[in-house]
Amino acid sequence: MTLEELRKQIDVLDRQLVDLLNERARAAQMVGQLKAATSLPVYEPNREKIVYENIRAANQGPLPDIELTHIYERIIDVMRALQRNELASQRNNAQAAAASEPGLAAGASPPETGKG
Amino acid sequence: MTLEELRKQIDVLDRQLVDLLNERARAAQMVGQLKAATSLPVYEPNREKIVYENIRAANQGPLPDIELTHIYERIIDVMRALQRNELASQRNNAQAAAASEPGLAAGASPPETGKG
Repeated sequence: MTLEELRKQIDVLDRQLVDLLNERARAAQMVGQLKAATSLPVYEPNREKIVYENIRAANQGPLPDIELTHIYERIIDVMRALQRNELASQRNNAQAAAASEPGLAAGASPPETGKG
Repeated sequence: MTLEELRKQIDVLDRQLVDLLNERARAAQMVGQLKAATSLPVYEPNREKIVYENIRAANQGPLPDIELTHIYERIIDVMRALQRNELASQRNNAQAAAASEPGLAAGASPPETGKG
């Protein structure tokens, strides 16, 4: 395969990666909506552990586990930021609703998270 | 969809992402082999620009371009490390071969890169 062909292949793979990352982002946003709308615990430290175990178990190389983890740390950072926005948006809506019912307005906001 | 279902979906997406990242890594390794084996220029600053243009053009959200770029900076870092290893390995082989032909041993090594 020529350099040109390899790069075309990489460009195709990158577009597939972008689609998958966006699909994952949509799911993370929906998790954020659920967390904001229900009484489920918002911060679940074991979830991140499961995400890393899952990707390492799926890893058949050539990426070493440590480099794959390195990429995933960034992916999870970004998903966390996205979910934080989702929670903040839901919380603002809830506060706007509560403002018309003063008895509910004192409820504490849940802490932010974003493990998905 | 329940939280449990969303997380199962995320785990499936993550395994697909791991496979795609490894496929991209294999292509980057092959680029590294080509660069080491041929007289093609090793450092091509325009290539990284093309990679970022490609992913931004493919981005349909919900990830903002800036967050997608943030993830890709890490992916490219990791691919660069992988390609650097590939080049070093090829270079060591070439040096071992050149050691038996002293006239060739003084050739400068090409600079490292990893844009794929």
